[in-house]
Amino acid sequence: MKISIAQLNYHIGNFEGNLQKMLEATETAKAQGADIVVFGELAVTGYPPRDFLEFDDFIAQSEQVVQELAKAAQGIAIVVGSPSRNPVIEGKDLYNTAYFLADGEILHMSHKALLPTYDIFDEYRYFEPASEFKVVEYKGKKIALTVCEDIWNVGNENPLYKVCPLDELQTQSPDFVLNLSASPFSYDHAAERIHVLKANIDRYGIPIFYVNHVGAQTEIIFDGGSIVMSPDGNVYDELPYFEEEIRSYDLDKVASGGQHKVQPKDKMTLIHDALVTGIKNYFGKLGLKRAILGLSGGIDSAVVAVLAQRALGAENVRMLLMPSQFSSDHSINDARKLAENLNTQYDIVFIEEIYKSYEAVLKPHFAGTTFDVTEENIQARIRGMLLMALSNKFGNIVLNTSNKSEAAVGYGTLYGDMAGGLSVIADMYKMEVYALARFMNKDGEVIPEHIITKPPSAELRPDQVDSDSLPDYEILDEVLFQYIEKRKGPKELVKIGFEEKLVRRILRMVNMNEFKRAQVAPVLRVSSKAFGMGRRMPIVGKYLG
Amino acid sequence: MKISIAQLNYHIGNFEGNLQKMLEATETAKAQGADIVVFGELAVTGYPPRDFLEFDDFIAQSEQVVQELAKAAQGIAIVVGSPSRNPVIEGKDLYNTAYFLADGEILHMSHKALLPTYDIFDEYRYFEPASEFKVVEYKGKKIALTVCEDIWNVGNENPLYKVCPLDELQTQSPDFVLNLSASPFSYDHAAERIHVLKANIDRYGIPIFYVNHVGAQTEIIFDGGSIVMSPDGNVYDELPYFEEEIRSYDLDKVASGGQHKVQPKDKMTLIHDALVTGIKNYFGKLGLKRAILGLSGGIDSAVVAVLAQRALGAENVRMLLMPSQFSSDHSINDARKLAENLNTQYDIVFIEEIYKSYEAVLKPHFAGTTFDVTEENIQARIRGMLLMALSNKFGNIVLNTSNKSEAAVGYGTLYGDMAGGLSVIADMYKMEVYALARFMNKDGEVIPEHIITKPPSAELRPDQVDSDSLPDYEILDEVLFQYIEKRKGPKELVKIGFEEKLVRRILRMVNMNEFKRAQVAPVLRVSSKAFGMGRRMPIVGKYLG
Repeated sequence: MKISIAQLNYHIGNFEGNLQKMLEATETAKAQGADIVVFGELAVTGYPPRDFLEFDDFIAQSEQVVQELAKAAQGIAIVVGSPSRNPVIEGKDLYNTAYFLADGEILHMSHKALLPTYDIFDEYRYFEPASEFKVVEYKGKKIALTVCEDIWNVGNENPLYKVCPLDELQTQSPDFVLNLSASPFSYDHAAERIHVLKANIDRYGIPIFYVNHVGAQTEIIFDGGSIVMSPDGNVYDELPYFEEEIRSYDLDKVASGGQHKVQPKDKMTLIHDALVTGIKNYFGKLGLKRAILGLSGGIDSAVVAVLAQRALGAENVRMLLMPSQFSSDHSINDARKLAENLNTQYDIVFIEEIYKSYEAVLKPHFAGTTFDVTEENIQARIRGMLLMALSNKFGNIVLNTSNKSEAAVGYGTLYGDMAGGLSVIADMYKMEVYALARFMNKDGEVIPEHIITKPPSAELRPDQVDSDSLPDYEILDEVLFQYIEKRKGPKELVKIGFEEKLVRRILRMVNMNEFKRAQVAPVLRVSSKAFGMGRRMPIVGKYLG
Repeated sequence: MKISIAQLNYHIGNFEGNLQKMLEATETAKAQGADIVVFGELAVTGYPPRDFLEFDDFIAQSEQVVQELAKAAQGIAIVVGSPSRNPVIEGKDLYNTAYFLADGEILHMSHKALLPTYDIFDEYRYFEPASEFKVVEYKGKKIALTVCEDIWNVGNENPLYKVCPLDELQTQSPDFVLNLSASPFSYDHAAERIHVLKANIDRYGIPIFYVNHVGAQTEIIFDGGSIVMSPDGNVYDELPYFEEEIRSYDLDKVASGGQHKVQPKDKMTLIHDALVTGIKNYFGKLGLKRAILGLSGGIDSAVVAVLAQRALGAENVRMLLMPSQFSSDHSINDARKLAENLNTQYDIVFIEEIYKSYEAVLKPHFAGTTFDVTEENIQARIRGMLLMALSNKFGNIVLNTSNKSEAAVGYGTLYGDMAGGLSVIADMYKMEVYALARFMNKDGEVIPEHIITKPPSAELRPDQVDSDSLPDYEILDEVLFQYIEKRKGPKELVKIGFEEKLVRRILRMVNMNEFKRAQVAPVLRVSSKAFGMGRRMPIVGKYLG
């Protein structure tokens, strides 16, 4: 028996597009001699369809696609994820289902039992968990058909669920496991995935075919990296990251094992490719082409510029240099040099005259006050407005260049440098941004070296540097990582060795700035805990504030 | 036996404040001769604590408060909601628990079984559902102790759950039901609540004491309206809306019934009071005092101005009139008249000079283009920036004045009129805003009549009116209501009687503007489906787009 894995880039709610893509992949799999072709979890709708699932019309359209795929299941079985309706009146209205389609019909449906409801996941919002478990029999083989999380309750120290679907299926002696996934990227997730599959192999000892999505849906990026694992615990094959791919495997050979092929997992390579994919798919799936961003001469906008150029092409990226009286000469020169390295269009727009017009209008109202964060914000907001004006006039989408460290502590201006349609690097701490810049320069200078080596500054008042208002990024980033990714409270942070006063100051900054982060563009997620839909904090709350 | 209901306004994460408030209420209840005082669901933490629940330190602090309350439970039993840890390693780490505290100790814990995970609710994200059900025995009475949703699986046409906690408890012959709730306001919810309680009475025939929160937590408003219901199906008492209240009831009298006392449920009164509470608590709980808003002379900013003045006091509300060359004389006069009616500070700032400075700077880049939405947006953004400048300088928080109709179809400028710290009326359709304005004028003119009667206009180009770009609000609002609140798809909307072309156009506008709504301030929720945390839509998605 030959099994084909189709690792594809779906588009939420694009039923026609997803169907066509799966029909073509089915032909490819047939040409490869496959008996079964396997697509991802909720491949029909794209993942995550979110509250579209609450529309009867949306579900009806997904059922139509499943029918079309069933018709195409001639001479090959098609395994695909799509919602199905719960026939029982009690409980949620839908199941998250893996359909087994063969000979023009729905041969079998396996519902997902373990519904992730944490971080970015909201599955129990929509789906009823499966309570029955039954293998599919096809061409003399018994198949344990599972959906994503269903195989993740093995080998965890703190299991989230009380049921273990493969324990239930095991009693029916399956020959192998198919797992339809939609498992989002984070820079440490590919390794974790192999770890969990290995735990399943140790427990059940049968081949596993794990099929993932690839490509981005707004903030969530799927890296692919689908896996075929042999009973000997070897990774028989791991599909490439961030690329569509259809590959077929002989079941007997996989069962024999002895082959170990994995993809390299360098953190910066993964993040780089994830962000390029994130930008490319955000634009592509919205039918957009062109981006614009402000180049300050600093590290953040430099890194975003390189990513944008690689994702969209130099001809589709436009940059604005918007110096004020506080901008240093080196900033303008560094920014210009970068734009030239990237071969992208750039314009210089001086903001001083506009700034003066605000000053004049506000003068009577600001009588008796002195220069403070207000005037700094006005500069940042003029820049945001100029970018938005060009965006509105020419259709270039503004890329936001905030990093995770400044987003965390609120070191940014709402409607100013926090403006934009997509937050490209807001899930990367400042030190990671530096690491990515160095990675980009590994085969020759793309980002002018001076941008990487000079001390970071917002240049919103004379001789300003970030360290005037913030702790050193080496320490700040580590405290933020422990608080945000690891969810350590103040006492635990002090126990780790951070100074208590500093911990209190940083946690207070993070919590007082929820209101700002509630108003930013979607953040491309590359860590295990990004700002946005995966981290839900009260705005009005006193704890640690 | 005497039972006291404490309907209080908690503050998320303010452990010390919540504890003090409950200790004082316990004294009041004692003074009223109560044997038991009952607080709301998760009263110790405030509701919803969201991802703070993932911090061990947060849970530890809540446990500390429960211990303090247990100490105070002398001569009176205290029933209070707070998280508790799940001692079993499988499943979620926490329960959503009702503690029964008596004689200085935890006498009993009832965990919530039905975990709402829809709309604004994310409870399965944090909590394991209860699987055991046991009445509490206290002073010779058997008490069915339940948490909020636990009593909502009776009398629904489409029950969301497979378990019915009171069916389980019924076998132990309880004498009455205590229900600790945190049930958010929407203008039709108070009536629904009574309907559900009545269904429980019909099934179980014992008195129910239903205790709700009051006050707002960011976008979610609790109206109170706690209920005591007798076995004869009468509402023995319904506590006031939007006020803290502690009242004690003789169990025997409640059991006898024959008394029916309900609060009036006029839609506009409820919405008005809810929004005033929402503003007041947003500012109060964040330690803020002063607001600022732009007065355009239109209906939306007029209604927000009145609400702000009533919530914060005239002395704490500041207004800016920011006319451009496109503003009509009547707009300025109407706005000025309103500010005078409200006795609030107002200033007139002309934006034309600033606009010209943008024009000058952008001229070389805009060569060959004509006036379009770009120039309209620049005006709106200058106004947003001026409000933010005064906000930054003097600490007045900007109130956003967008309504639900324009938020739905994207008829607004990001970082312009969509800016602000709190979206006051963004859960009210335009026609509802008019109704609220008329309600405000019922005892004499507060809002100048001309503001209510003139055709709505953004005044961003000569002689512009909303109906140039939008369907009439009467029709638009109805389509939006059916799509957003009732989740009707395009086919169903056509079946209702709307023109297909119009339906497609409106749905497309709604879906294409998710990116804008993702970047706005929290929206005070007054309907059953508000934009924000209760409505989660993909930004990158093709369905109906």
